[in-house]
Amino acid sequence: MLTYDLDARESGPKYRYLYRCIRHDIRTGTLAEGARLPSKRALASHLAVSVSTVEQAYDLLVSEGYVFAKPHSGFFVAAGRVEGGAWRDDDADAADEPAPAIDLKANRESMGLFPAESWSRVMRGVLADRDDDLLDTIPFNGLAKLRASIAGYLREFRGISASPARIVVGAGTEYLYGKLLQLFGPTAVIAMADPGYKKLALISRGAGTLWEHIPVDEEGISIDGLRRGRADVVHVSPANVFPLGFSTSAARRAALLDWVRERPQRYLIEDDYDSEFDFDSRPQPPLFTQDDSDSVIYLNTFSKTLVPSIRISYMVLPERLMSVYRDQLSFYSCTVSSFEQLTLARFIDEGYYERHVNRLRRHYREARERMLELVEASPLSVIATVRRPSVGTHLLLSVDTRLSDGEVRRAAAERGMSLAMLSDYCEEPTVRTSQTVVLNYASISSERAPGAIDLLADVFRDDIARVRRREARN
Amino acid sequence: MLTYDLDARESGPKYRYLYRCIRHDIRTGTLAEGARLPSKRALASHLAVSVSTVEQAYDLLVSEGYVFAKPHSGFFVAAGRVEGGAWRDDDADAADEPAPAIDLKANRESMGLFPAESWSRVMRGVLADRDDDLLDTIPFNGLAKLRASIAGYLREFRGISASPARIVVGAGTEYLYGKLLQLFGPTAVIAMADPGYKKLALISRGAGTLWEHIPVDEEGISIDGLRRGRADVVHVSPANVFPLGFSTSAARRAALLDWVRERPQRYLIEDDYDSEFDFDSRPQPPLFTQDDSDSVIYLNTFSKTLVPSIRISYMVLPERLMSVYRDQLSFYSCTVSSFEQLTLARFIDEGYYERHVNRLRRHYREARERMLELVEASPLSVIATVRRPSVGTHLLLSVDTRLSDGEVRRAAAERGMSLAMLSDYCEEPTVRTSQTVVLNYASISSERAPGAIDLLADVFRDDIARVRRREARN
Repeated sequence: MLTYDLDARESGPKYRYLYRCIRHDIRTGTLAEGARLPSKRALASHLAVSVSTVEQAYDLLVSEGYVFAKPHSGFFVAAGRVEGGAWRDDDADAADEPAPAIDLKANRESMGLFPAESWSRVMRGVLADRDDDLLDTIPFNGLAKLRASIAGYLREFRGISASPARIVVGAGTEYLYGKLLQLFGPTAVIAMADPGYKKLALISRGAGTLWEHIPVDEEGISIDGLRRGRADVVHVSPANVFPLGFSTSAARRAALLDWVRERPQRYLIEDDYDSEFDFDSRPQPPLFTQDDSDSVIYLNTFSKTLVPSIRISYMVLPERLMSVYRDQLSFYSCTVSSFEQLTLARFIDEGYYERHVNRLRRHYREARERMLELVEASPLSVIATVRRPSVGTHLLLSVDTRLSDGEVRRAAAERGMSLAMLSDYCEEPTVRTSQTVVLNYASISSERAPGAIDLLADVFRDDIARVRRREARN
Repeated sequence: MLTYDLDARESGPKYRYLYRCIRHDIRTGTLAEGARLPSKRALASHLAVSVSTVEQAYDLLVSEGYVFAKPHSGFFVAAGRVEGGAWRDDDADAADEPAPAIDLKANRESMGLFPAESWSRVMRGVLADRDDDLLDTIPFNGLAKLRASIAGYLREFRGISASPARIVVGAGTEYLYGKLLQLFGPTAVIAMADPGYKKLALISRGAGTLWEHIPVDEEGISIDGLRRGRADVVHVSPANVFPLGFSTSAARRAALLDWVRERPQRYLIEDDYDSEFDFDSRPQPPLFTQDDSDSVIYLNTFSKTLVPSIRISYMVLPERLMSVYRDQLSFYSCTVSSFEQLTLARFIDEGYYERHVNRLRRHYREARERMLELVEASPLSVIATVRRPSVGTHLLLSVDTRLSDGEVRRAAAERGMSLAMLSDYCEEPTVRTSQTVVLNYASISSERAPGAIDLLADVFRDDIARVRRREARN
């Protein structure tokens, strides 16, 4: 029987230590190819740990290919990945790297708020009804039912009047953005905001499409910058100039619509991401509703408002672009399974989605206030000026520090914290965009927030001490 | 109350007639924007039809944007799509086109065989267990659990030893193929079989990648053709030279592996589509298992074996390509929702998938024999030579006819039948590939098959009469 001293581990969960022990024995050949591992129950009893500890260790070994399961007969050591049965460390060690204890970048917190109970109930309803749509081939742009639900939602909550025939459903915004690039063709140049979503440039490069970064001023993306460039397509998020978190001014919106109207080949992609979390009392309507030149593409996702593992986004195309899409790209199969499309359609139609978004908005509003109070009560307040974006789920902390942005990130990482700086979102960082922490409160529970703020203050402890000394002298 | 004479309709279902009547009134303005439609129950009783007839008509109107539903308050006429409230017929009329009564192209029959009961049970189990994976962000290449299940399946049923770390899960083969094109880069040239899957060329064109069609001879894709071309990547389906339906010869397989081994930049995409339906008693193992140069990409899908509306495909990458994928494309989010990934993983692990595929294989074997008997007993046998491919779900009927392939298709369409000809799959049709019907028996139930064969015989009635006269003379 395999014998390991689980108390000898220095830190981390038992199952991971057990996984490492067994992996070591497989790599060194102590456990040979084809060898049968003890049953989970037997090993658990032998090592005096719970069955679930062994189970998790085995799961990890299986998922990394060291071990394979034969249905109804047990777990066996797999053949090595390269000749001679030796094991190569391709991603094994990457998987071993601990996740940061505090991740202020990902949207982990919202996952706990996902209405799993209601979603499951709706799902069971869809299963019970055995809709024909479940088994039929899906139209290229998504099931008519889901497109109708989305159209209804847009009408009611964004004031958008969109025919379901002009909606395209796809597995994520990245996917739909890629399809748009195909529509625009290889000679298109795409303008995108700086700072902004850095993935857009990656996707454009991947598709072989040229792009330009256009600076953002206090009203939104720069029209002068746009006019100096040679792009005919611009990607903007008017409701949420990301990550600066303000809404594009009315004048700038009008100027954007003027720009797009000037030439027939121009298009504007309105990415309405996070517009659900607009805390302004009177948010402006989407540009899409003011477009009289059939040139605005509306784009949004359910992955942020529901949960990142549900991959459903959609876009509303201008009529003229929809007919090109139909001609050129409708041979691509829809990328979202019908089961999830039907579940989401009902989830919207029965009011669950609206209630969930409202609940999430309330939650984020409270989390924002709480985070603000924490920062103000902490030593951080000595060196940080807090900006509270009206849209989105983060605060911006301009800090008076002698550390470079890279040094801040490293110091945070040393303390087990993953941190984003405003310059991470910039193509060309400037003085204005440096030394600013992007504090995403959607990523952390209220219980853990105080600890995170303490750690952050510790990152800047020298600066805090310096400013305090200076203030004491004055 | 809306009053229409439903008995005045000439053909087609009542709901569709009702839909057309209401649509007409909306288009002409008889029903104005914002007008409330009668409740389903009230209209049903007024017109003396069932509630479900009204419901289906309303659903269609909603899905096409003529009408919108307000939760808890009813159905209302939507605003017109263009200025002045007038309605433009964009896809309304396309939706109106009746589907062919007999579709010998789509895989409609397999849908009825989908084990919806087991799938639902597994899904409920996944829901009940509330796995953390359901809410977490999905790794770029898919959940570890699903990749482990796929690796286990490949090991057991295809003899493939693949580390789950080298598997990439995506929403459909088209999506994964697109990602491969990105990996190969803009200067790559892709070789593909002629005849073969015509979508490959479309996807390549969409991605801006060059491609070449390489002729197929009786052993498989032509190596001479490949050597005369300038492609460094070849797409083949060795188990099923589609739609000719034979397995690539051992000599040709060896030659393909020689070709790919010659230069480090060469890759072979092994599309194993339909290999589950190989009726040969001793099918050959995948090329992937014989590749010693780390150059074969294995690609397969669950959409054909399960149901087209479940969008899950996967590929196993060579180690050197996986590391490029990780570097360059891992920023793309996985396109398959975790819920479906977990369901499929369990479906495989608990043996349901294997049982389903076995059942499907038996079903297709029987359907094939039945179809063969029908053709042989019909007047078609006078003019048709039937080839029975060893792989896939279709028969090939070479017909002695004076009709061109286009005339055959048109004559079939006039009889309400959608038909594929071998030349539909050819880039450069030749005498050898013309006048051959691709008779997909996965598309039609055993009840409807005799009627379809009668219709097909009717398409060729002049030829049958001609051959009979000739035979009578001799």
